Amino acid sequence: MTITVAKMAGFCFGVKRAVNMAFDMASSKNGVYTLGPIIHNPQVVAKLKERGIEDVEEPTEDMKAIIIRTHGIPIETYEKIQAMGIEIIDATCPFVKKAQQYAKLLREEGYQVIVLGDKHHPEVKSIMSYAGADVSVVKDGETPEGLKPRVGVVVQTTQPVDALKRLLSNIVDKIKEIKVYNTICNSTALRLKETNEMSGDVDIMIIAGGKNSANTTQLANHCVSLGVCTYHIETALELQQHWFDGVAHVGITAGASTPDWIIQEIIERINHIGGKTGNGSSK
Amino acid sequence: MTITVAKMAGFCFGVKRAVNMAFDMASSKNGVYTLGPIIHNPQVVAKLKERGIEDVEEPTEDMKAIIIRTHGIPIETYEKIQAMGIEIIDATCPFVKKAQQYAKLLREEGYQVIVLGDKHHPEVKSIMSYAGADVSVVKDGETPEGLKPRVGVVVQTTQPVDALKRLLSNIVDKIKEIKVYNTICNSTALRLKETNEMSGDVDIMIIAGGKNSANTTQLANHCVSLGVCTYHIETALELQQHWFDGVAHVGITAGASTPDWIIQEIIERINHIGGKTGNGSSK
Repeated sequence: MTITVAKMAGFCFGVKRAVNMAFDMASSKNGVYTLGPIIHNPQVVAKLKERGIEDVEEPTEDMKAIIIRTHGIPIETYEKIQAMGIEIIDATCPFVKKAQQYAKLLREEGYQVIVLGDKHHPEVKSIMSYAGADVSVVKDGETPEGLKPRVGVVVQTTQPVDALKRLLSNIVDKIKEIKVYNTICNSTALRLKETNEMSGDVDIMIIAGGKNSANTTQLANHCVSLGVCTYHIETALELQQHWFDGVAHVGITAGASTPDWIIQEIIERINHIGGKTGNGSSK
Repeated sequence: MTITVAKMAGFCFGVKRAVNMAFDMASSKNGVYTLGPIIHNPQVVAKLKERGIEDVEEPTEDMKAIIIRTHGIPIETYEKIQAMGIEIIDATCPFVKKAQQYAKLLREEGYQVIVLGDKHHPEVKSIMSYAGADVSVVKDGETPEGLKPRVGVVVQTTQPVDALKRLLSNIVDKIKEIKVYNTICNSTALRLKETNEMSGDVDIMIIAGGKNSANTTQLANHCVSLGVCTYHIETALELQQHWFDGVAHVGITAGASTPDWIIQEIIERINHIGGKTGNGSSK
């Protein structure tokens, strides 16, 4: 059985940076917390907790420092933490930061801001807070209502570019002016592209990463849409031997918030359990 | 035989304004010329010539006044006429003027300007002159090459909105920022929409207007694409009796540069020649 691991699998630039910042803090300071999970990966969050960094819902006076997670936080929360005199370690992904700043700029330039993404996702909540009172959040395929003549668009960094194309197609005939910041992160696009290429060669595809991770779930849904037999797992423990019966070629990829050690454990366990009638060589 | 004339057939706001300005000049002044045909309708241009207003290619010192046609002229030509001391009667369509000004604004804001339209059309040539040295003109379906990260888009006023959707879809994944002025004139869109609605009810469609008129030709091509038997004519003299054999319902529409008297002559002639086995009532 051959195993091919996607080159783009796992941590992106922003996640790597945030996780490093958090583990650095763990070894240098006490009384440090993250506001919400630092990234959408329960295993990384558990490891951080072992090192003394817990995630909390709300800041409290006794905290020494708060790490802002990759997805960012609403500006009101940021200002509240500052006002409480708590040190801020800002691990917001620089690409999310850009999206926040563009939303602010569009608002200052008088545009009605539209954020393309999932309104329940913390990244989108953080961007919305910079976008003004008349912000609309639309998910893929939706057409925003009550459009003003001048519209500005920013995009959740993990959205597929086709969603942006659909949004523009839905609104451009309803407005006079539109300014778009394509804030889609390149690593998401490249990961999806690589998946397209792999999908034709493999019998099954294993997607590793948090069930609460938007980009990992998108990756899994994308594989399903390509007609490949797809399993989305968080850890190697979820692997089932019978998945590999008669399988010659396994593809593995992982979301931007999946650490390398989880991918490694998955490879090792697949090699260990194998498939009943597997053939070919293993990686 | 029933004849239905589209409500939106014929002169749009900008054309009506320009033609009125030209006929006003004809009755008040000598030595007045238009630079190129005032609109893309040979019959209107011929009528103006009878009244003493000819169209010329180039301004010359002996001219008293020059009427700028609906499509506008390049800024260099405008400045040349001014420098020659010739009076300018500016009949540029106000919507084209807006597209010119938006092209200038985008250039001043540092965008690479893309004009969606036909590079040989005088309107597009006039807009291009405001758009800076690195302007690209792309026609429907084309993807511009050598895109910079910040792109500004203006549109020839008579383009179909689907062409704009296709352009945005082709470029949005290649750039970081895009500012679009949707300068498509509403009357073009409404005329196409009305044609969609009419096409299901009629047996044949007569499109009246200049063969050199972009929006009339677009209207005719659009009808053909809807699967309707379509004839594009400039005047009633081109009508053939056999077109109406067995026809119960005739639809008539006309481009933005087609005068009412041409539409009237067409209706009269159709009523006169009729069809061999026509039935129903005539308008």
